[in-house]
Amino acid sequence: MEWGPPFRCLRGTRRNIMKKLIALSAMLAVAPCALAADVAAGKARAEAVCAACHGANGVSVSDKVPHLAAQRAEYLEGQLKAFKEGARKNPLMNAIAAQLSAEDIANVAAHFAGQPGAQAGAKSGLLPHVAKSNGTFP
Amino acid sequence: MEWGPPFRCLRGTRRNIMKKLIALSAMLAVAPCALAADVAAGKARAEAVCAACHGANGVSVSDKVPHLAAQRAEYLEGQLKAFKEGARKNPLMNAIAAQLSAEDIANVAAHFAGQPGAQAGAKSGLLPHVAKSNGTFP
Repeated sequence: MEWGPPFRCLRGTRRNIMKKLIALSAMLAVAPCALAADVAAGKARAEAVCAACHGANGVSVSDKVPHLAAQRAEYLEGQLKAFKEGARKNPLMNAIAAQLSAEDIANVAAHFAGQPGAQAGAKSGLLPHVAKSNGTFP
Repeated sequence: MEWGPPFRCLRGTRRNIMKKLIALSAMLAVAPCALAADVAAGKARAEAVCAACHGANGVSVSDKVPHLAAQRAEYLEGQLKAFKEGARKNPLMNAIAAQLSAEDIANVAAHFAGQPGAQAGAKSGLLPHVAKSNGTFP
């Protein structure tokens, strides 16, 4: 049986829709892998890079240093990028953020955003090697 | 009975000590009033000035806006001063902080520092007059 012009048109449209759906499924299957932050990698990076001042879990060690625990990931990412690019000025944070890749930044932001919020008056202890130094810290 | 020179000396010293103690007591009685932040005034100011974006209790309304709840007072004060003076750049915050006195800044910082930390994913609702507007916010 031969399909009349309107049906041929419909078949073509269906094929296009199917093609688009397959392409969309492929995109959706890949996209989360590219976008999702790696929280475990963020935790490891935070322990190595951020913990001395902000605490490994985002409860900072000093009144001068902000808590990062439960802070919004998007805000943390934005500020780290601003420090990295020099748009927000702080000699210490400019130097630290400059060493973080965009992936590092997304990961540490996700790590801190997932920590429970600091309680009033909470303070993390100094890391052992920092506590041993005689310098004023931070 | 006449006091010998050493005792007279002691009496003089005692009088000086008493004078200094009285002066010190007067200073201590006044100092806390000058230094202590007024948390209630800070709450009122925060409700009027900060709440639309940061939430009255420091749990912000948007992923782009930081939580201030349980954040360190000294850090908050430092950042508000930096915004007021233009050392930290953000057109919205520069304009808002410019309207706050040093006293306002100390008060709102103390208010937010005393709030319980935000839980992960927590979000304050928009204020009624903001929710009614059609603008993108914040």
